[in-house]
Amino acid sequence: MSEHFSIGVIQTAITGDSDSTCDRYEHLIAETAKAGAQIICIQELCNSKYFCSVEDHRFFELAEAEDGPLVSRFRGLARSLSVALVIPFFERRAAGVYHNSAAVIDADGSLLGVYRKMHIPDDPLYYEKFYFTPGDIDPGYQVFKTKYGTVGVLICWDQWYPEAARITSLMGAEVLFYPTAIGWHPAEKEEFGQQQKSAWQTVQRSHAIANGIYVAAANRVGFEETENTDGLEFFGGSFICDPGGTMLAEASDKEEFLVARCERKAIEESRQLWPFLRDRRIDSYASIVKRWID
Amino acid sequence: MSEHFSIGVIQTAITGDSDSTCDRYEHLIAETAKAGAQIICIQELCNSKYFCSVEDHRFFELAEAEDGPLVSRFRGLARSLSVALVIPFFERRAAGVYHNSAAVIDADGSLLGVYRKMHIPDDPLYYEKFYFTPGDIDPGYQVFKTKYGTVGVLICWDQWYPEAARITSLMGAEVLFYPTAIGWHPAEKEEFGQQQKSAWQTVQRSHAIANGIYVAAANRVGFEETENTDGLEFFGGSFICDPGGTMLAEASDKEEFLVARCERKAIEESRQLWPFLRDRRIDSYASIVKRWID
Repeated sequence: MSEHFSIGVIQTAITGDSDSTCDRYEHLIAETAKAGAQIICIQELCNSKYFCSVEDHRFFELAEAEDGPLVSRFRGLARSLSVALVIPFFERRAAGVYHNSAAVIDADGSLLGVYRKMHIPDDPLYYEKFYFTPGDIDPGYQVFKTKYGTVGVLICWDQWYPEAARITSLMGAEVLFYPTAIGWHPAEKEEFGQQQKSAWQTVQRSHAIANGIYVAAANRVGFEETENTDGLEFFGGSFICDPGGTMLAEASDKEEFLVARCERKAIEESRQLWPFLRDRRIDSYASIVKRWID
Repeated sequence: MSEHFSIGVIQTAITGDSDSTCDRYEHLIAETAKAGAQIICIQELCNSKYFCSVEDHRFFELAEAEDGPLVSRFRGLARSLSVALVIPFFERRAAGVYHNSAAVIDADGSLLGVYRKMHIPDDPLYYEKFYFTPGDIDPGYQVFKTKYGTVGVLICWDQWYPEAARITSLMGAEVLFYPTAIGWHPAEKEEFGQQQKSAWQTVQRSHAIANGIYVAAANRVGFEETENTDGLEFFGGSFICDPGGTMLAEASDKEEFLVARCERKAIEESRQLWPFLRDRRIDSYASIVKRWID
C-alpha cells in the first residue's frame, strides 16, 4: 500500500439542469484529477438546486436509484479517469423510501456502496425530514475501501454529531468526507454568518483531532432563490484538514476545487503522539445511547 | 431561577508550597468573585507543581482525602465569599487508590461531590497512569447543582473525548469546566506549539457547539523544570466560550482570571436554532463502546 494518497473536494453553484450540472462536474473532476486527486468528493445532492428549501411533492421526481443515470454516468467517469468518486444524490430506494445518499465509486467504475445520511435536519428552508428517511442502522455508518484509501462518508447534518465521526473512524476510515449544503439566511448573515461558518468548521476539525483522521468537507456555493423566501446563500468554504486539525486547503465562496495529500504515516503518528484511542473509557459510554439522562 | 449566572476561571504559575499556593488562590478567587463570578474553577492538581512529569513514589504523599485540609480550606472560602468552587486536587481515596479529582463546593461551603478523572494520559512528562486510577463507572460522569447553576466537570485529558462531553451534557450540565495542565515540551514548541494549542482549543469549542453548552477551561501557566528533562512550559490560554463556540474570554500565558456571564436563554436558543439533540440517532450509536470495529 502506498504511503500516501491524494484527495480532492469540489464546490460549485448549481445554475442549470442535471445534465448541464453533470457536464460541469465532469470538467471539474477531470481538472481535480489532473491536479493529482485520486479520491474526489462533490457536494451534497449534487445535481440540482437545494430543493429542500420548500416542501413540494413534485421534487420527488428528482430522485433516482443507485443504478440510475446519475450514478451510472459517474461510474463511467471514474473508470475513464481512474479516480474514486463520492457522488451525493437524491436516492429513490423504493416507492416512499427516499434517502439523502452518497454513492462511493472505485477507480475501476465499480459501485462500492451507498451511504445514506443518518441525521436528517428540519429547519426553516432546510425541510429535509419531508423528503428523506434516515439511513438504516445496518448498514448505518460505513467505510469503503477504494483503490487508493479507505474512506468514510457522512453527509452535512451528520457533521454535528461526534458519535458518527467516531464510529466511522473506528471502522477504519482514513479520511471522512462531508458533502454538504450549508448556507446563510440573508437576514442572518451579517449578525450570525461568521459564527455559523466558524462553528461548522470547528466541529469538523474537532472530528479530525479527536479521531486522528483526515477530514474533507465539500460545500456548495451560490445564492439560490426560493419562492416566497429570501433564499439561501451557500457559503462554500470547503476544506481539507489533517489529523491534527490543521487546515491543508480551504476554499473561497466561489466555484473551486481543492487537492491535498494524505500521509498514512500522519494518521499513525498522530494517534501515537496523542493516543486518544488508547485511553477511551469504553466501559463508561453506554449512556450515550440515551436521549437525555434524567 | 435566575436568567443568568457568571463563571470564572483562574490560571496561575505554581512557585511555592501548597500553603503559599493556596494563599495565592484565595486572593485570586476573591478578585474573581469581586469581578462578578459566582462559580469559579481553578486549574488541575491545583496546589503543587505538575509532579507527573516524573514517576516517583514520594509524590503520593501529596495526595489527600476529600475531607482533607485542602478541600476543607476552600469550603471555608466558598462559604465566606458565597461562591461555588471547582477545586481540582490529588485525591487519596484509600491506600493504593489515588485519583486526579475535582471537588465541587457549593456557595454555602457544602461539598456537593467529587469528580474523578475518567481518561488518564501517559505520555513523556505526563506519566499520569503511574499515579492515578481512572474514575469509576458509577458515578463516572457527573453534574453538580450549585446555587447558581448546574455544572459538569471533566479534567484535562477528558477534553479530547466527545463522549465525555456528550454524556455530561445529557445529564443537564449548563457549563462544562475543564481544569487542565497542558504545556509544551520546549523542543517541540516552535514546530508544533501553535498547532497543539489550536487543537486543544478547537476540540473544547466543539463540545460547546455539539452540545449547546458553555465551556470553560482553566489551564496552568509557567515553566516547570524537572530533573533530567527540558521541563514543561504550561501555555495558559484558559478560555470561556458560549454554546455556539464563540470565545467570550481568553487568557494570555500569564497569571490571569476570566469572568463571563452565562445566559440560560442562550443554551435554550442555541438548542432550538441548531437542534442537534433533537436529531441524535440513538438507535445507531451502540458500537461506540467498542475499542475498534473490526
